[in-house]
Amino acid sequence: MRIDIVTVLPELLRSPFEASIMKRAIDKGLVEVHFHNLRDYTTNRQKSVDDYPYGGGAGMVMTVQPIDACITHLKSERSYDEIIYMSPDGETLNQKMANTMSMYENIIILCGHYKGVDQRVRDHFITKEISIGDYVLSGGELGALVLSDALIRLIPGVLSDETSALTDSFQDGLLSGPIYTRPADYNGWKVPEVLTSGNFAKIDKWREDMAYEHTKNRRPDLLSFDSAQDDN
Amino acid sequence: MRIDIVTVLPELLRSPFEASIMKRAIDKGLVEVHFHNLRDYTTNRQKSVDDYPYGGGAGMVMTVQPIDACITHLKSERSYDEIIYMSPDGETLNQKMANTMSMYENIIILCGHYKGVDQRVRDHFITKEISIGDYVLSGGELGALVLSDALIRLIPGVLSDETSALTDSFQDGLLSGPIYTRPADYNGWKVPEVLTSGNFAKIDKWREDMAYEHTKNRRPDLLSFDSAQDDN
Repeated sequence: MRIDIVTVLPELLRSPFEASIMKRAIDKGLVEVHFHNLRDYTTNRQKSVDDYPYGGGAGMVMTVQPIDACITHLKSERSYDEIIYMSPDGETLNQKMANTMSMYENIIILCGHYKGVDQRVRDHFITKEISIGDYVLSGGELGALVLSDALIRLIPGVLSDETSALTDSFQDGLLSGPIYTRPADYNGWKVPEVLTSGNFAKIDKWREDMAYEHTKNRRPDLLSFDSAQDDN
Repeated sequence: MRIDIVTVLPELLRSPFEASIMKRAIDKGLVEVHFHNLRDYTTNRQKSVDDYPYGGGAGMVMTVQPIDACITHLKSERSYDEIIYMSPDGETLNQKMANTMSMYENIIILCGHYKGVDQRVRDHFITKEISIGDYVLSGGELGALVLSDALIRLIPGVLSDETSALTDSFQDGLLSGPIYTRPADYNGWKVPEVLTSGNFAKIDKWREDMAYEHTKNRRPDLLSFDSAQDDN
């Protein structure tokens, strides 16, 4: 997979791609990530990438020209599965979307900043708008990081133990149940006896029951037919 | 506000706090962010912070001891409004929660990694579990960044134009409508005439109508009484 991230703040994105799973995936050649600084694509002398909103109001708006130049340049080099704009009013990301998108070959992620981008960018260049949740962030960069991580860890060969991703929350429509590791007794806090019983059939049954109970208590919406998981 | 982030990957967190709004808030002294490396709190010789799950299965589990040592140390120095664990099965973050939490003085954010933390950590140390959305990430670090940004930008004095945050999506229960900036005509793509009319009453009305229409089309759930915004 190749991910092109278009941003006014490439330096913000750096460290998460230089650590952990995302770094490993890049080092293994399973994913390529490229940052594109919009200021490199401006044609005005001030290298400005934003301007005041028409009709007045607070906050600046990202202009069409540098985004057009950058995206048009990238599209001339390869074809993209999606050109994504991170925005709180986009389609809310969930695991099912992440599963589908993890099979894409090339994506562009445009990060909005300030009050967002000129609507004409969304109308003419963007093929998919994604939100990571119902809250506002200072820019699309953290959303781009979240989306990248959610996709990259699903690419075969990225996680060292491939079965690990399959037992994550959401993959079977349930939240994960409780997990424990050594010591069996920490300051008098003990692990459930079943887990040290050695009876794996009983352990599997206990885990299924706990995952179901946990989901019923915390997220009954995931158990219903109309759940967000099934909407997409 | 003081944010203590407890992690096995402090280096992953660095660049987002060194750019944009979060950097500005730190530079202005409006927020203090401290990273704590769990490996500095282990008492075993190998400095290990994880171990195999009881009962078998894929993935490693973060052990109680270093987390206990780190959180107990922090709590001895000051009192915390919440000790938060980032987890996909936590309460889903929304703007209303962010508004409330932006008034806190001190919070700890514990980032899980691998398959997560030993359940006894959640039972005995954590006061609030937060998810940033229904998808799985390689660790809690990106969640901690998202939560930090969502809170920090709401602290008075952080955004240069304070009214800016108030007109964001979700703050009035509506998504933001379209925004435009110069030029009025880009390759034949024109801004809506009303915005260049100079009639501010008409502009305000147009904006309200567009925000309502946009919300009705994309997120009708936000307009109903049972919306996620009102659940908390």
